[in-house]
Amino acid sequence: MAEHTVIGKRPPRIDALDKATGAALFSADIVLPNMLHGKVLRSPLPHGRITRLDTSKAQALPGVMAVITSADVPAFQNDDEILMPMVPTLAKKRVVFAGQPVAAVAAKSREVAAEAIGLIEVEYEVLPFVIDVLEAMKPDAPLVYPSLQSGSGPGKKGASGNLFFSAENARGDAEAGFREADVVLENTFRTQTVHQGFMEPRAAVADVGRDGKITVWTDNQGIFKVRELVAKFLNLPLNRIKVMPVEVGGSFGGKEHQQLSPLCALLALKAGRPVKMVMTREEVLKATRPAPASVVTLKTGVTRDGRITAMEATMIYDYGTSVGMPGLEAIFFGSITAFSLYRIPNFVIRCRDVLTNKAPSGPYRAPSAAQAAFAMESQMDLLARALAMDPLEFRLKNGVVEGDPMVNEWSFGKIGFKETLERVKGYLAEHAPPEGKNRGRGVAAGLWLTGCMGSAAHISVNADGSIVLVIGSTDMSGTRTAFAQMVAEEFELPLSGVTVATGDTETAPFSIITAGSMTTRSMGKAVYRACRDVKEQMCRRGAAKLGVERDEVEYAAGRVRLKKKPNESVPIPDLVKEDYMSPFAGPITGTGAGEMMAEGTPVFAVQVTDVEVDGETGKVTVLSSVVGQDAGVAVNPTLVEGQMQGAVAQGIGWALFEEYLFHDGVMENATFHDYRMPTAADVPPIETLLVEVDSGAEPYGIRGVGEPPIVPGPAAMANAVMSATGVRLKELPMTPEAILNALKSK
Amino acid sequence: MAEHTVIGKRPPRIDALDKATGAALFSADIVLPNMLHGKVLRSPLPHGRITRLDTSKAQALPGVMAVITSADVPAFQNDDEILMPMVPTLAKKRVVFAGQPVAAVAAKSREVAAEAIGLIEVEYEVLPFVIDVLEAMKPDAPLVYPSLQSGSGPGKKGASGNLFFSAENARGDAEAGFREADVVLENTFRTQTVHQGFMEPRAAVADVGRDGKITVWTDNQGIFKVRELVAKFLNLPLNRIKVMPVEVGGSFGGKEHQQLSPLCALLALKAGRPVKMVMTREEVLKATRPAPASVVTLKTGVTRDGRITAMEATMIYDYGTSVGMPGLEAIFFGSITAFSLYRIPNFVIRCRDVLTNKAPSGPYRAPSAAQAAFAMESQMDLLARALAMDPLEFRLKNGVVEGDPMVNEWSFGKIGFKETLERVKGYLAEHAPPEGKNRGRGVAAGLWLTGCMGSAAHISVNADGSIVLVIGSTDMSGTRTAFAQMVAEEFELPLSGVTVATGDTETAPFSIITAGSMTTRSMGKAVYRACRDVKEQMCRRGAAKLGVERDEVEYAAGRVRLKKKPNESVPIPDLVKEDYMSPFAGPITGTGAGEMMAEGTPVFAVQVTDVEVDGETGKVTVLSSVVGQDAGVAVNPTLVEGQMQGAVAQGIGWALFEEYLFHDGVMENATFHDYRMPTAADVPPIETLLVEVDSGAEPYGIRGVGEPPIVPGPAAMANAVMSATGVRLKELPMTPEAILNALKSK
Repeated sequence: MAEHTVIGKRPPRIDALDKATGAALFSADIVLPNMLHGKVLRSPLPHGRITRLDTSKAQALPGVMAVITSADVPAFQNDDEILMPMVPTLAKKRVVFAGQPVAAVAAKSREVAAEAIGLIEVEYEVLPFVIDVLEAMKPDAPLVYPSLQSGSGPGKKGASGNLFFSAENARGDAEAGFREADVVLENTFRTQTVHQGFMEPRAAVADVGRDGKITVWTDNQGIFKVRELVAKFLNLPLNRIKVMPVEVGGSFGGKEHQQLSPLCALLALKAGRPVKMVMTREEVLKATRPAPASVVTLKTGVTRDGRITAMEATMIYDYGTSVGMPGLEAIFFGSITAFSLYRIPNFVIRCRDVLTNKAPSGPYRAPSAAQAAFAMESQMDLLARALAMDPLEFRLKNGVVEGDPMVNEWSFGKIGFKETLERVKGYLAEHAPPEGKNRGRGVAAGLWLTGCMGSAAHISVNADGSIVLVIGSTDMSGTRTAFAQMVAEEFELPLSGVTVATGDTETAPFSIITAGSMTTRSMGKAVYRACRDVKEQMCRRGAAKLGVERDEVEYAAGRVRLKKKPNESVPIPDLVKEDYMSPFAGPITGTGAGEMMAEGTPVFAVQVTDVEVDGETGKVTVLSSVVGQDAGVAVNPTLVEGQMQGAVAQGIGWALFEEYLFHDGVMENATFHDYRMPTAADVPPIETLLVEVDSGAEPYGIRGVGEPPIVPGPAAMANAVMSATGVRLKELPMTPEAILNALKSK
Repeated sequence: MAEHTVIGKRPPRIDALDKATGAALFSADIVLPNMLHGKVLRSPLPHGRITRLDTSKAQALPGVMAVITSADVPAFQNDDEILMPMVPTLAKKRVVFAGQPVAAVAAKSREVAAEAIGLIEVEYEVLPFVIDVLEAMKPDAPLVYPSLQSGSGPGKKGASGNLFFSAENARGDAEAGFREADVVLENTFRTQTVHQGFMEPRAAVADVGRDGKITVWTDNQGIFKVRELVAKFLNLPLNRIKVMPVEVGGSFGGKEHQQLSPLCALLALKAGRPVKMVMTREEVLKATRPAPASVVTLKTGVTRDGRITAMEATMIYDYGTSVGMPGLEAIFFGSITAFSLYRIPNFVIRCRDVLTNKAPSGPYRAPSAAQAAFAMESQMDLLARALAMDPLEFRLKNGVVEGDPMVNEWSFGKIGFKETLERVKGYLAEHAPPEGKNRGRGVAAGLWLTGCMGSAAHISVNADGSIVLVIGSTDMSGTRTAFAQMVAEEFELPLSGVTVATGDTETAPFSIITAGSMTTRSMGKAVYRACRDVKEQMCRRGAAKLGVERDEVEYAAGRVRLKKKPNESVPIPDLVKEDYMSPFAGPITGTGAGEMMAEGTPVFAVQVTDVEVDGETGKVTVLSSVVGQDAGVAVNPTLVEGQMQGAVAQGIGWALFEEYLFHDGVMENATFHDYRMPTAADVPPIETLLVEVDSGAEPYGIRGVGEPPIVPGPAAMANAVMSATGVRLKELPMTPEAILNALKSK
């Protein structure tokens, strides 16, 4: 790896002080003169026909400035009641999940808005509903979208009933592979609907200028995506919407879509005044887009010496009322990533996306991968046990290396799976499993394909040679700090010489959403190229000033110097501006933009977790975790480690606590009291092992790092519980009740 | 001239609606949480030594959060009491003009701040002062800056006493020229101190972030200049200051310097809270930087047939307490521009900058030119009368053409002086002078060198092909609209497809101050180049998409097309982003930057004014005005005409009303009631004649247009009064009293 001076170091996050002191501005902090407060009326039913909707009493309430229903939505509304992708759908004739918006109001106070919501009269004809994904697949199940039967819906390959997407992917001869096997295991694994659990509830503020331009502040994963979605919802050109940058308090895929900002903008347009909307936690849980529940059946054959010969997988994912891209994309990547870690010569993989009367599902950190990996890595543990092999050795034996194919048509480039397994193995050699009753250790691995799409950056040079980077990408994990490091690296400046300015959708050039673990790479490429552009301009100007050819000079630490006589140089400030009264060459400003890479960059994570299970209560205590990750070159190791630690914590939530519970089709645990997420008391010390295998990618050989470490977590936990107790839980979450039941059955 | 589709048209200003409805944000509109209010304690004396300065009682007043004196200014303070250039100087030992800041406070309310100012105890030893510029030149005059005697001050060429700058410029043999002349006239002309009279009082808001970064909103002519000045004042790196864009309510050179923002930032730093400061009109008039008073003596020789043979000029300008660049620059350009309109083979020009105990002088629209032009163009009128020549014909006979030298070492390029004179002549042929008693017509010409310095622009392409231009330059005369027209012209889009975003000092690339009539050209060049950059990228990408070479395609109206088969094309949105799941080439973003041109671009204005003088009261009524201007290619003729009309109105103020009146060294008419500016009732219908002689300059052959039309105004008025009454006023303003006195003396 190349030698770096700032890349790879651990400066504190440049937003740390503002975040820690409360000075950072989140969208709910925005206060505008004459601002109204908006509120949404939501469906109380999982499925129903609207027979009457009367807003007249709400309209008449003093202080109410606007009421909107589906009749006010200018575009994008469809009559077949299929929810719009990535934006809210105000119900027209039918509600399809409990929590779906039906109407919204803007009023002079939160209290009046709440009162107005109560005055909107809606009558429903109750319709039969389905919540369980396997129930939904039965022939007599209530249909979530009857019109999809006619083949009019999207993603209709092999679909019928509530099965709206069905695909199969095969290689070799699975039957022959199973015949070749010495051991064949078949198991079914289930996970429940879980939420991204971001701390900041969804919020939006919208203002309308005299020229009709709408300015929006909202929690987001990309201001340009917000612009696109609000423009589509309102059927307006892109340049009629301006989205301001704000800090975002957690997202994990849950803020790619917009639930409030389109409604907020529509209310502001109708009221002619700014409007703020903030979701309650109940609304966040009931009406935003959680990760799909899943049922995955795996049949796997291995030879006695530990070689996988065949696999048959059926993945059934519960997409609630979502038929948009996120579902297709997620299960697609879920299947690729859960099953591509090992050489499997023969396989059949069946993907099934199913509709239920639940909130539309959406992406959650490595979408769909953790569900499938829970199945695959539990199965791997069962296979290793059946063969009496060490689980790490079993994975080392079958693990992919450069050149191996994935389960789709792609193959692996430079990867560090075996290196990561070896690194974890080395660590474990010095850290023995926990001793004592009901204690055990679980191992699991995970793969995610991290993305790289097109973003752009501007760089300007201040008169004193300090540098300003202008970007429009949302910082969710310290990416601004990583970019500041890149600029400091390129210009050989201290970090104090670099300003990272986050612009709005007008002052910043386009950037793709902060998602897919790609921001440091997607925008990093643009930043790197912009640095090169600016340095080239500096060198050309410096060469002219020194009276030599361009090739004779180079940039070095705030100067352009002769390559052969480094002492002869010109400082950058002399190139940017000269004496006031004499001609000067003008400011230096540059740009960089990156293109999309179709194939994701593979990143592997290996997690080992030690647990203790209370035999009396069924409570699982996580004693410690170690997670190794094939992280590429780490721009800021502290930030990468933070991603890994956070992912382990979320994996504990999936494994032990989190699930949507329904009563009569309505989520019944929609509070943080009842929807249990891990707290500091549940999270053990987490050791992080960075395995820096250069990805070969521009810039610096970095890889995406945010999503991969969540993938192995739930399986590692289940494998540890097995190790501690001898019971195999094939269903998440492993609540105390579930564990006690399993212990009893043993 | 090239054919344009948007350049040269008259779309309304893109900021018109916001300005007209009050939605536009000016700096005094900014309100921040916990904001304090600042106020300045100012010297009541024109000259005094501070013997005691005690702020303890003010400090102790409840609600006072910060008090600053010169002891708090971290840098830039000097012991010799010479005012700092372009920033305020908190007096240390000595005050040198009435209105000079001595201390400032920030308090929880305006009322407490005012009370605290009253509690600051200052004792002065009264020192002798001098206000009149000729008195100041006498050997026994009180010295404004005694230390300049020692040669330590700036601009010390030939200086002595209060004469701090002295320069001479000669060509040919003036004595011989006078001997050759048939008529030699010598006259002395005087003008008084006048103010730019911007409507928006100076204001500033400063906020300090947790990281110590200071954010400033203030009325300005350039946010990057504000950043530079505040940083210098506080001795901080540039990137510790961020200046936000705000609308500016008039400036005319009067807001290049910063009087409040440095103090406001210092108060905010000391108080740890945001601070707002707004000047009263009295403070604006007493303590900002008005245009210098002048005494110009001209001796001019002409032959009987109207050929100028020689000139001797002595220009004495009253720079108050200013010794900074603006003074030197202004009188320098004043002499070049006032005397370069005509071929003068032999001349001596003496420039004298003199100090008095008045507020420091500063630039005002074509700085120093109107004063000298008042002298020169009055003299031209007297010479024409002496020769019984038509004043336009006299100017046509002597007027410069391309290739003629200026009075310095430069010579004229492509100019339109004679074309403008001819155009006005043609207009007058159809508009006879006013008939009747005490009515008359005056003619005068003016020249100004309009600038072009380095600015930069960013352009991004939205996914729908609409364009965003990001600039940081302050819009004082509709420049944003001009830039929008340029972008629309280049991309062949309607104006609705163009967004002009004004960034702050971080999100926008550098731009030079909006001054010197140069913004449309300086930034226009950057905008034009950024458009070309982006179009080139579009063409490269389009060529690749169409599978041809770059040279085979061209941009046309939102598409890249084959030059030879224009029907084969690809729309821009297809080049900016393609399908979500397939590779796309990434966003398109580009930059442009311009370099400084050392030589100004000459622009000529010719004004003809008809007046009626009331013989009983001395009141002058302006009946009509026509102003012709060599305007280059007018990007938006309506905006150019607006500049010309505004300049004529200001010229009426100079000519008839405006002057600083002093009592005991203190300005005694520091209100808009007593400092009389022209109102709508004083301004006649103004005919504007645009003479579009292509400047040959990039882009589009435009010229600067803002300053030139004020130059001939005062002289045209004096010449009209002469025409109406037969009396020659050689001193401005021509108040009723002055005219009555002159009529009496006749």
